[in-house]
Amino acid sequence: MDNAIASRVRSIFDKANFLQQIGIQLTATGEGSCETTLSIEERHLQQHGFVHAGVIATIADHTAGGAARTASGERDVITIEFKINFLRPACARKLICHGKVLRAGKSVIVAEAEVFAVNDAEPKLIAKLTETLAVLD
Amino acid sequence: MDNAIASRVRSIFDKANFLQQIGIQLTATGEGSCETTLSIEERHLQQHGFVHAGVIATIADHTAGGAARTASGERDVITIEFKINFLRPACARKLICHGKVLRAGKSVIVAEAEVFAVNDAEPKLIAKLTETLAVLD
Amino acid sequence: MDNAIASRVRSIFDKANFLQQIGIQLTATGEGSCETTLSIEERHLQQHGFVHAGVIATIADHTAGGAARTASGERDVITIEFKINFLRPACARKLICHGKVLRAGKSVIVAEAEVFAVNDAEPKLIAKLTETLAVLD
Amino acid sequence: MDNAIASRVRSIFDKANFLQQIGIQLTATGEGSCETTLSIEERHLQQHGFVHAGVIATIADHTAGGAARTASGERDVITIEFKINFLRPACARKLICHGKVLRAGKSVIVAEAEVFAVNDAEPKLIAKLTETLAVLD
Repeated sequence: MDNAIASRVRSIFDKANFLQQIGIQLTATGEGSCETTLSIEERHLQQHGFVHAGVIATIADHTAGGAARTASGERDVITIEFKINFLRPACARKLICHGKVLRAGKSVIVAEAEVFAVNDAEPKLIAKLTETLAVLD
Repeated sequence: MDNAIASRVRSIFDKANFLQQIGIQLTATGEGSCETTLSIEERHLQQHGFVHAGVIATIADHTAGGAARTASGERDVITIEFKINFLRPACARKLICHGKVLRAGKSVIVAEAEVFAVNDAEPKLIAKLTETLAVLD
Repeated sequence: MDNAIASRVRSIFDKANFLQQIGIQLTATGEGSCETTLSIEERHLQQHGFVHAGVIATIADHTAGGAARTASGERDVITIEFKINFLRPACARKLICHGKVLRAGKSVIVAEAEVFAVNDAEPKLIAKLTETLAVLD
Repeated sequence: MDNAIASRVRSIFDKANFLQQIGIQLTATGEGSCETTLSIEERHLQQHGFVHAGVIATIADHTAGGAARTASGERDVITIEFKINFLRPACARKLICHGKVLRAGKSVIVAEAEVFAVNDAEPKLIAKLTETLAVLD
């Protein structure tokens, strides 16, 4: 993939304070795809000791957005809606997230993201998101 | 509303580390309803200077969850999915969120939440969420 | 409301074959709102004898779309995504649906719809939809 | 796959009047999967001459439900919510739909479905649905 695109995707991660604060890291980009990771700490948990739905939604949203950004050329993108299903309680040392573009139109992009929990065994799919982004003028 | 219920809702806010870290505060509970607030700081923003979608999703999810918790008696609840629409760019000093139960069944509760941006003028609706929660045994 | 708008909404009901086939009728339009009804027959049911989710989704989608059409001036609208929660099994003589615009932007409109089951007692809320529409050039 | 399961899936298609009326046909079932098809006629269209969103939502919902039914043993399933994105205008001679289980829990199953438009060229993905089903007692 074009280095210019890769650096644009990186910049939407670097400049998003909230992502930095959570600790989400960009690990790869491709044409219509994006990959991120997060090391889980106490501060990411909810009342039952699982990773908070808000943390999972944030990594999934931003990774789908990163994938969309690889498909929008010079133009920026912004999330207009998303839906996420939590498939298993998220008990994990680390999260890995894969984002993928489903359809890139001129003014709207649809992307999805899968979030996996990593422990000692094989990564487990714990959440799936579908999102719609507007391509900005 | 029953004080026992109010204190159960409070406990799901107090015990959720991630909520504490963001700074979301519970301001009111009623039968099938819940209200929260968040003072916006630099750390909550995304790359365009708006409140990050993940922050908005987190307050909306947890407030809908608080509303659901008022309707589940002795039993706890957990989010199984949600969908959120971002209606306007979130440029705000403060967010206020209202959660409301749409339907409380024995094993599943559906709730919604509206998020308002507060600046100097009238609060503006910036996001709306609908969510499904499972009632735990 | 402007009669020109009311007749544009009516035309998207009259010209949609699938709506005609199901039997959905437009009963009212207002600024940012739309109301429809459907008399339930055997052919609308699913395997448990309830109204099929597809029938409920169709009336909710098209009524939200009618509401959106009242807010898009000369331009037409098309559904880009929706989410619907089924709150109760739909056992009904008749459905009534209310659509309402949540936010009308220049290129995107967000609307919601509530579907009520009518029997002898008070109408019961059986489904709630949120949907995003694109405004066509 | 077990013939008993295949015949249970078939029965939820045969007994659903609304599916029969639209003309949706079950073409295959597997472990956690289901495939259907629909020949498009004038009566399936909306006001712009595309297949109506309600038709697409119905085939996607019921095919995801068929996939879920392959994973619920003796117990029946019912849709509690779904979300669907319409990726391209549906101009097609025929629709093909693939449903797949994402996660089969004891009381809740999450499934997805992809709808393809078939014309003379390669089938095109026109819609994607994610849905949550309750497993009935």
